[in-house]
Amino acid sequence: MFGASNFPLAFSVAGGDTASAFAAGCPVVVKGHGAHPGTSELVGRAVQAAVASCGLPEGVFSLLFGTGNEIGTALVADPRIKAVGFTGSRGGGLALMGVAAKRPEPIPVYAEMSSINPVFLMPAALASRAEALGKAFVASLTMGAGQFCTNPGILLAVDGPDLDRFVDAAVEAIGGSAASTMLTPGIHAAFDSGVTKLAGSGAVTTLARGLACSGPNQAQAAFFTTTAEAFLADTELQEEVFGAASLLIRCADVAAMTAVAERLEGQLTATLQMDGEDKAAVAGLIPTLERKAGRILANGWPTGVEVCHAMVHGGPFPATSDPRSTSVGTLAIRRFLRPVCYQDIPAELLPEALRDGNPQGIWRRVDGELGHD
Amino acid sequence: MFGASNFPLAFSVAGGDTASAFAAGCPVVVKGHGAHPGTSELVGRAVQAAVASCGLPEGVFSLLFGTGNEIGTALVADPRIKAVGFTGSRGGGLALMGVAAKRPEPIPVYAEMSSINPVFLMPAALASRAEALGKAFVASLTMGAGQFCTNPGILLAVDGPDLDRFVDAAVEAIGGSAASTMLTPGIHAAFDSGVTKLAGSGAVTTLARGLACSGPNQAQAAFFTTTAEAFLADTELQEEVFGAASLLIRCADVAAMTAVAERLEGQLTATLQMDGEDKAAVAGLIPTLERKAGRILANGWPTGVEVCHAMVHGGPFPATSDPRSTSVGTLAIRRFLRPVCYQDIPAELLPEALRDGNPQGIWRRVDGELGHD
Repeated sequence: MFGASNFPLAFSVAGGDTASAFAAGCPVVVKGHGAHPGTSELVGRAVQAAVASCGLPEGVFSLLFGTGNEIGTALVADPRIKAVGFTGSRGGGLALMGVAAKRPEPIPVYAEMSSINPVFLMPAALASRAEALGKAFVASLTMGAGQFCTNPGILLAVDGPDLDRFVDAAVEAIGGSAASTMLTPGIHAAFDSGVTKLAGSGAVTTLARGLACSGPNQAQAAFFTTTAEAFLADTELQEEVFGAASLLIRCADVAAMTAVAERLEGQLTATLQMDGEDKAAVAGLIPTLERKAGRILANGWPTGVEVCHAMVHGGPFPATSDPRSTSVGTLAIRRFLRPVCYQDIPAELLPEALRDGNPQGIWRRVDGELGHD
Repeated sequence: MFGASNFPLAFSVAGGDTASAFAAGCPVVVKGHGAHPGTSELVGRAVQAAVASCGLPEGVFSLLFGTGNEIGTALVADPRIKAVGFTGSRGGGLALMGVAAKRPEPIPVYAEMSSINPVFLMPAALASRAEALGKAFVASLTMGAGQFCTNPGILLAVDGPDLDRFVDAAVEAIGGSAASTMLTPGIHAAFDSGVTKLAGSGAVTTLARGLACSGPNQAQAAFFTTTAEAFLADTELQEEVFGAASLLIRCADVAAMTAVAERLEGQLTATLQMDGEDKAAVAGLIPTLERKAGRILANGWPTGVEVCHAMVHGGPFPATSDPRSTSVGTLAIRRFLRPVCYQDIPAELLPEALRDGNPQGIWRRVDGELGHD
């Protein structure tokens, strides 16, 4: 497991990846992230103490530190490692996927890498609540200096006066947003570089920047706009800028919004801001969104991720390396399980879960029927 | 989908791979196997007629023919293809995995490739029914000229007089087994080459060959033996010889059988021939077999594969490229599904399966509880 920079607890040493692998019965080796070595060590020692107090073998859990890619590459290449969990950059994830694919025994890599989380501002919703949507968008965009995998990195809407009202409200909110210190100097440098690249694109207009920075590694929120035609003509405009930067794509009509959606790469989320009168248009959009995203949400913002049964924090490449999986929620355990069939094995040699009489009282499928038999 | 040479119906144009992809809602492109072009065309035309009579779009199903790897490679590289099913050789499967991993958008490859399906002859079972086991083994080995993925390619047993009785019975049965015509000249040539290599190994003794061949592409069954030490010293002895060839590994004791099991590559199946008194020894072996095989069976032979809910026709690499899956049974559909989360989507825009009141009457998990609500 590779700890993520931006969630020192939820996606790091004892985060969801580690928890789901433990739940599946796997020993775990964590490569701590350089952004929070102290927190990693504190949490690692807590896990170590729990392993001891449960009487488990020490090898059930290890925590390694190191800069550069050397340790991570060696871990993924090690024949004793059977699966990899990773949350981080597209480059980092692709590198680990390459190492895993080249092993004599290839293994699954669950890398959550890159997502710009499109938000569709549907016409009726814009007409009825453009200003409120503008403010709520900026709150989601700037939360935690925008350092969330599910940050709303692009907006799609039909051009016109309702969208202008949204833009005015968003520009005002961003203009008043304080600069925030980012997690690491590297993340800050990448944000500045991404924002500079967008601002310098001939097809992109800068709508607003946040308040000026006053300290090291601080970032100013950034809000840009372009047209659907320009966005479709330049695939680089789809690149994630990790942090509080977002690009509004002005479309001629809902059909153009759908055309842009069709050309998007895989996403963790797709968000619909919609009112009742938008339903017909949204019905035409949903089949596309189902193929592009792991989670489709209406009238919320993607930055909230609940740990629950229904959550899918995953999605088609490059959102993740494996769209069959989620790294959040109960389905996350499936990443570390594989099926085994027991045929005519004597009862006392079966796993308890499969024995006659169902001693664990679990849900099971017997002769095709789900039940407690 | 790549048709397999050895199952013109079950693993070809309209086989389990195609059926599970259709069930998951995927259009399917089949690359027919050169071993049975006529059967492929007949079945393909039947599917085409079914597509028409169901009023589905023509593109739901395509069937392509061609020799060499060109068409297959182009299909796997095509951005419109999102997953691959394959049953065939290790070389073929590895090549497709390589193509898929190098795509700009990598995709899952479900390749069933190579398995030698170890059979463990436990001491009490050998003591009580060595002769019957010897005959039953040969029946499984020679069925269909041994051209099954689940053919029993190695046997493990403790050396001694009980094993000698098993060997005598097996040698007699093999010596009387008729030569059988193999599926293709290529498969026949590979079988002959594999058998010649085993026979020529200094560490391997030939125990028996079947009756002499009388026609083209006919194969003589072959039965070899070696020691646990020699087997562990030469990884080439683990290579699958597709056809009716099997290697008996004589072990000093059950611990040596377990040591060999630990060093086996991933397998589709592991078979235990055991009696009541073998249970303690088998209990020590099962944790190893669970990590090595997709299906563990007792007192049967691996060559029978039932299409049912509990079947796992899969296993760790190189048995398959993806040990999380099965290509037979109802779980096979999972290869072609991915989860999507719908958050606060208006009821009439939800898939019917997720709507309030459960209009389809399916099993669902609501607030964590399975039920029909």
